[in-house]
Amino acid sequence: MFGNYPTKLPQEISFLLLPRFSLIGFSSLVDPLRWANTISGKELYTWKNLSLDGKPVISSDRMSLLADAAVDEVPQTEMLVVCAGYDPQLYVTPQLTGWLRRQASHGSIIGAQDTGSYILAVAGLLNNYRATIHWENLNSFAEEFPKVKVVDDIFEIDRNRFSCSGGLSGLDMMLHLIQCQHGQDLAAAVSEELIYSQRRSAEHPQRLSLQARLGTTNLKLISAIKIMQRTLEQPLTIPELAAEVHISDRELERLFRKHLKTTPGAYYRALRLEQARRLLQQTSQSVTSISVACGFSSSAHFSRCYLAQYGVAPSKDRQA
Amino acid sequence: MFGNYPTKLPQEISFLLLPRFSLIGFSSLVDPLRWANTISGKELYTWKNLSLDGKPVISSDRMSLLADAAVDEVPQTEMLVVCAGYDPQLYVTPQLTGWLRRQASHGSIIGAQDTGSYILAVAGLLNNYRATIHWENLNSFAEEFPKVKVVDDIFEIDRNRFSCSGGLSGLDMMLHLIQCQHGQDLAAAVSEELIYSQRRSAEHPQRLSLQARLGTTNLKLISAIKIMQRTLEQPLTIPELAAEVHISDRELERLFRKHLKTTPGAYYRALRLEQARRLLQQTSQSVTSISVACGFSSSAHFSRCYLAQYGVAPSKDRQA
Repeated sequence: MFGNYPTKLPQEISFLLLPRFSLIGFSSLVDPLRWANTISGKELYTWKNLSLDGKPVISSDRMSLLADAAVDEVPQTEMLVVCAGYDPQLYVTPQLTGWLRRQASHGSIIGAQDTGSYILAVAGLLNNYRATIHWENLNSFAEEFPKVKVVDDIFEIDRNRFSCSGGLSGLDMMLHLIQCQHGQDLAAAVSEELIYSQRRSAEHPQRLSLQARLGTTNLKLISAIKIMQRTLEQPLTIPELAAEVHISDRELERLFRKHLKTTPGAYYRALRLEQARRLLQQTSQSVTSISVACGFSSSAHFSRCYLAQYGVAPSKDRQA
Repeated sequence: MFGNYPTKLPQEISFLLLPRFSLIGFSSLVDPLRWANTISGKELYTWKNLSLDGKPVISSDRMSLLADAAVDEVPQTEMLVVCAGYDPQLYVTPQLTGWLRRQASHGSIIGAQDTGSYILAVAGLLNNYRATIHWENLNSFAEEFPKVKVVDDIFEIDRNRFSCSGGLSGLDMMLHLIQCQHGQDLAAAVSEELIYSQRRSAEHPQRLSLQARLGTTNLKLISAIKIMQRTLEQPLTIPELAAEVHISDRELERLFRKHLKTTPGAYYRALRLEQARRLLQQTSQSVTSISVACGFSSSAHFSRCYLAQYGVAPSKDRQA
């Protein structure tokens, strides 16, 4: 189980780096382990990097990292984290899923960073497990893998599977691991070395609060936007929306103009187009079904709005 | 100046990676730039990695990163960040300081990550500038470079020099850069992609609050420890300390036992030994002068306490 005291020290953690992995996401996992060793003066953890072919792997910010071995050279791992970034689907092969399933059958504790959850799900290793993924991918992930219990926490531990949503969330997850295995004092000391003062629990929301993101605390405005976010597929009219938050249409228009320099209608449409863009780039749904899922009355209307917003037709925007 | 809108886009940032740099520290600087490009759909930033000899550089957690060029192959940088970790003094050569000074005289905006500030200070590039460094190195840094205006913030911007204290603080600094140049909305969107919900301003303290670190909110206990931290060189007696926080010796003993499972005397001594260890490993002060600076009445007593705490004599613990 994740977090149990290991049967022997050091605990060895293998990181499988897929091309275009996130360097900050990966280093958020590794650096706390190194600090745990340094501070405790003991070799609590050791780690190795695996790549698909044993060659260096290039991160999403174009850094080349050397690998210690190719997956095929490593028959058995003790604890494994699959680190992936953009386009994980490009790297799923029968060889890889076979190797991952063998790790699971050997009893490896298996986890994922960012879109690594997609890889594990394809291999069937998250069926009936709780797991998370980056918030941009949550909808498409839940849709594609109904057997996975998808949660939107920053990280999720479920028995011998674990996942974190990406970016800095891996740091919170590894601090949790260190705390479970070696105590609160060591986890706090690692945080301090990493100048990380606001450690978060698993349930912390992935995204900024609307208040923080928009830089406003107007409750009527926040409520209106939350309703918009929940009704992307079947948008309300602006009068219906105003009625929901108990203000006049005119007052709603005024709030959007004052705080966001736009109109409620334009803001609503931009949210629906953002969602459409995510679905286009992350799923294989047709343009027509995406236009319906984002509340557009016709594909032609959707395509016109999309082109105006992003300068490219939806059909051409499928490989970002 | 750091944060001014660049004269042309993309702005090019060069990272000089010294051996044993911190991978999480470096990626905290680069990944926000990559996201700023992706989210805006424009090439706002571009970056390259430099190493001393053009060969791959090995981070403190033993990751090998390829370099784009050796410093000597790059006559002029637009913006430069020196990323260093353990033992920066091992990599300061006349060639390097000469190259750095030439960058400054060409008008490069020059900054440092973690102990990179040490390198810039040796080159004289921080004289009369405000700068920060990792909290473990603050004391020795201020002592060695009296012309640098040393501050203990998480990052510090002063005209065309900038520095961050290490770990995650570089992320806050780069979000500040993105916000200054391209607005709050883009900085907030980058934060969200990186699952970083609690962005900090420059003045945020580097270390956890004592409350958070110790997991206690007892004000008498916190006050007593703060007094200990300020009096490492001339420690008070326990009765003096108890009087300072207006409780009895017995009550002070009880608080330490209850919350920290130790005695006030043992806790105080551990703090002084920690400070001694930092000075041993980061300065060339003699063991005798360090024992005095940490409030020990004799070097022999200091050496005995140190050996008991760390299992090694102070004179043998100078290269960790």
